[in-house]
Amino acid sequence: MGDAKTLRYEQLAADVRQLIDDGLLKAGERLPSVRETCARRGISPSTVFQAYGLLELHGLVEARARSGYYVRAQRRPARALPAPAVPNLEAAEVSVSELAFDLIESTRDPQVVPLGSAFPGAHLFPFESLARSGARAMRRLKAGAVTSALTAGDAGLRDALRRRYALQGVALAPDELVITNGAMEALNLCLQAVTAPGDVVVVESPTFYAALQVLERLRLRAVEVATDPREGVDLAALAELLDRQRVAACWFMPTFQNPLGALMPAARKQALVELLQHHGVPLIEDDVYGELYASERRPPPAKAFDSQGLVLHCASFSKCLAPGYRVGWAAAGRHARAVQRLKMMSSLATALPPQLAIGDYLAQGGYERHLRQLRGALAAAQQRAWRLVERHFPAGTRVTRPAGGYFVWLQLPAQVDALALHHRAMALGISTAPGVLFSADRRFVHHLRLNVGHPGDARVEAALRRLGELATEAASR
Amino acid sequence: MGDAKTLRYEQLAADVRQLIDDGLLKAGERLPSVRETCARRGISPSTVFQAYGLLELHGLVEARARSGYYVRAQRRPARALPAPAVPNLEAAEVSVSELAFDLIESTRDPQVVPLGSAFPGAHLFPFESLARSGARAMRRLKAGAVTSALTAGDAGLRDALRRRYALQGVALAPDELVITNGAMEALNLCLQAVTAPGDVVVVESPTFYAALQVLERLRLRAVEVATDPREGVDLAALAELLDRQRVAACWFMPTFQNPLGALMPAARKQALVELLQHHGVPLIEDDVYGELYASERRPPPAKAFDSQGLVLHCASFSKCLAPGYRVGWAAAGRHARAVQRLKMMSSLATALPPQLAIGDYLAQGGYERHLRQLRGALAAAQQRAWRLVERHFPAGTRVTRPAGGYFVWLQLPAQVDALALHHRAMALGISTAPGVLFSADRRFVHHLRLNVGHPGDARVEAALRRLGELATEAASR
Repeated sequence: MGDAKTLRYEQLAADVRQLIDDGLLKAGERLPSVRETCARRGISPSTVFQAYGLLELHGLVEARARSGYYVRAQRRPARALPAPAVPNLEAAEVSVSELAFDLIESTRDPQVVPLGSAFPGAHLFPFESLARSGARAMRRLKAGAVTSALTAGDAGLRDALRRRYALQGVALAPDELVITNGAMEALNLCLQAVTAPGDVVVVESPTFYAALQVLERLRLRAVEVATDPREGVDLAALAELLDRQRVAACWFMPTFQNPLGALMPAARKQALVELLQHHGVPLIEDDVYGELYASERRPPPAKAFDSQGLVLHCASFSKCLAPGYRVGWAAAGRHARAVQRLKMMSSLATALPPQLAIGDYLAQGGYERHLRQLRGALAAAQQRAWRLVERHFPAGTRVTRPAGGYFVWLQLPAQVDALALHHRAMALGISTAPGVLFSADRRFVHHLRLNVGHPGDARVEAALRRLGELATEAASR
Repeated sequence: MGDAKTLRYEQLAADVRQLIDDGLLKAGERLPSVRETCARRGISPSTVFQAYGLLELHGLVEARARSGYYVRAQRRPARALPAPAVPNLEAAEVSVSELAFDLIESTRDPQVVPLGSAFPGAHLFPFESLARSGARAMRRLKAGAVTSALTAGDAGLRDALRRRYALQGVALAPDELVITNGAMEALNLCLQAVTAPGDVVVVESPTFYAALQVLERLRLRAVEVATDPREGVDLAALAELLDRQRVAACWFMPTFQNPLGALMPAARKQALVELLQHHGVPLIEDDVYGELYASERRPPPAKAFDSQGLVLHCASFSKCLAPGYRVGWAAAGRHARAVQRLKMMSSLATALPPQLAIGDYLAQGGYERHLRQLRGALAAAQQRAWRLVERHFPAGTRVTRPAGGYFVWLQLPAQVDALALHHRAMALGISTAPGVLFSADRRFVHHLRLNVGHPGDARVEAALRRLGELATEAASR
């Protein structure tokens, strides 16, 4: 998906990177000032800030207060990364849903600052273009479409998705795709297609609480596997686990894992798929953040390495184009027909108007441009959030610096109970996602996931500052 | 919902009924001719045919070829009703999904005459008005709506639904409604809220194949209870069953049951609810056909008699307003919060654009008028279908005459294997829904469910005739 035009801030970032790579800008040297660069290139200050923010995200430069941007001596993040967890390898019954339910309830209140939310700022999405597309598409919605879209979804949208995957080097079979009510339904159907109640499913540690909820709903047992904040699932630990016990499936997010933001390098994804193929274990790949990369190209999904149809790949438009439209999909390999049958039994088909709206929007050709803007905005927002964490959180706080998505994962000093902190923050109208949500056995008691994907929301910056102060108070008690 | 204006054909039908009730038109007497009535009342012939069709539906008059309409001596249908089934009361493992899946696949082909389809003719629905509403609503879809609609659905639509129920005398609690991806998802969530794998669920005999599929998906066991083609579930048989074994839930369609079309009289619905309350067994009420009554007012749902929150009432707009929009709901009584939590775990939320489109459409005020037209068209289509069955199906064929919906259920002579007939018909491009689909133990081998809700489709009339000929051939072998 690299065919769209390079945006101005990307071009500027690439030019500066080149200067650094060529040694023309050295460690400790100051970057050209924003004002100077605006004048020289005829661009706006916000474009320069986006470009410098992108370079900061990649660890190439750093901002110094009231001074400007400087080339960094080394690419290591200023704050240490959270320590990888040593999970409990016993299969655990799952029940985090009550807490997660409360969390989602709390984010419904528009007065609450949504650091605990799972969605980026809604103003980042092209709702107006989608509405125009929806109006066009709904006028064309004809009688026959209702039955012909049963149950796999609108054929036009499925074709458009297959083309996008093909451009990424992922070949999907013609009947492999099933459009679902968001990725959440896709993941549910895929998991049910390959498991029976009581089965063991391997998840990351920490893992997205919704995965735990789905396991709970399907009466499955979770085994967690150590997950590195940068490189994702520990393959050696996984190999050992697979040798030791029967596993029905793995549910992983190899690209910008929620909550860690970990990105498995392509070679590790390939090794993961090969390991699972060796054991005949299906991989349910949750790829909802795959489009939100801050690097130069889209990381390939694990599905790209799947030669045996054992990867059940799930994604959606909810985080990258159209929140609230609930259009997701599963490309379930050899389990595609089973998934389609389960779809029929559980919700018959996915609503047509949102599918047709998105299909029309994609055909209009603005999607790549929107994605580039979204990625730039999210990367810049992460920058600002890191600076605030740096400045306002207590010494000893560890923080992830993911290369995509819009979450940061904090490990607070050992004196800080993150759930108590969450409740104190909620009382001040600030939601967070406390770490206990992200594990079946309620570990991660000093951890928080923060959504930093709300650029331009002044309340978010104030809330991050206030949260840091609360954490500092708690740490000093 | 009787506040909308009476349509002309309804007024004419009411006037004629009054003449009959008053003895001014006696058994065997001819009704005023269509031409005469048109002239007298200044209405069109089709209005007169609709009115006379409605009276025929109610068993008050009958059409005689090339002669006109006559007052009937008795209200019994010309064809006998199918014999009530004597179900196997052993709990059965369920697996009809493969056949149902094939059936749905077959109805996707627009070349196939959809007698096996579950949907009425798509031209009966106001897609253009909905599209206008959708265009308006999507322009208004604002950022905040996405999170505030989590997970129960758009507040405006839920309020509109509550008002409709209140007008019918059904009081729903403010937080009782959850908007779902069609009634199918609602039924799944409700069933899961009150059962665990292995539990026994009572269904009607015959029952809608989707119910069997959902039981299969949730690993539940089905016990069938005898169901009268006119009056629905046999309450004595149910009472005995409840005394005899532990039952986790009942899943019934008390209004225009699929496939029988049975309508439980209000008093029987009340007795059903009281019986289940006595045993503490929840009733999952599938009410998707409730708006499609051919009588003068909407039959109350069982939910109207629920004083203890034990009725989990499910319905949708898919059969009465907006197929393909996948907007359904559950009003789950004391299980409402559990249903909402399961909704969050299984698909997070229902797509907003279709909800907002329908919300806007309802606010425009055309819904009652649409429903009246739809009811009239379906009732007239049933008339024509009965006449064709009368004329072309073999002697000994029994047929239901439901007072709503758009299905007829045929019991063919004992020589006719309905599944074989289905396959022969499919080879000629005619789909049917063979009886074996409607039972966990594949009884109803001489039965067919036919969708007669395709008025104006000339292929349907030809197909009914051809199907009758095939059945006659099979019966005479």
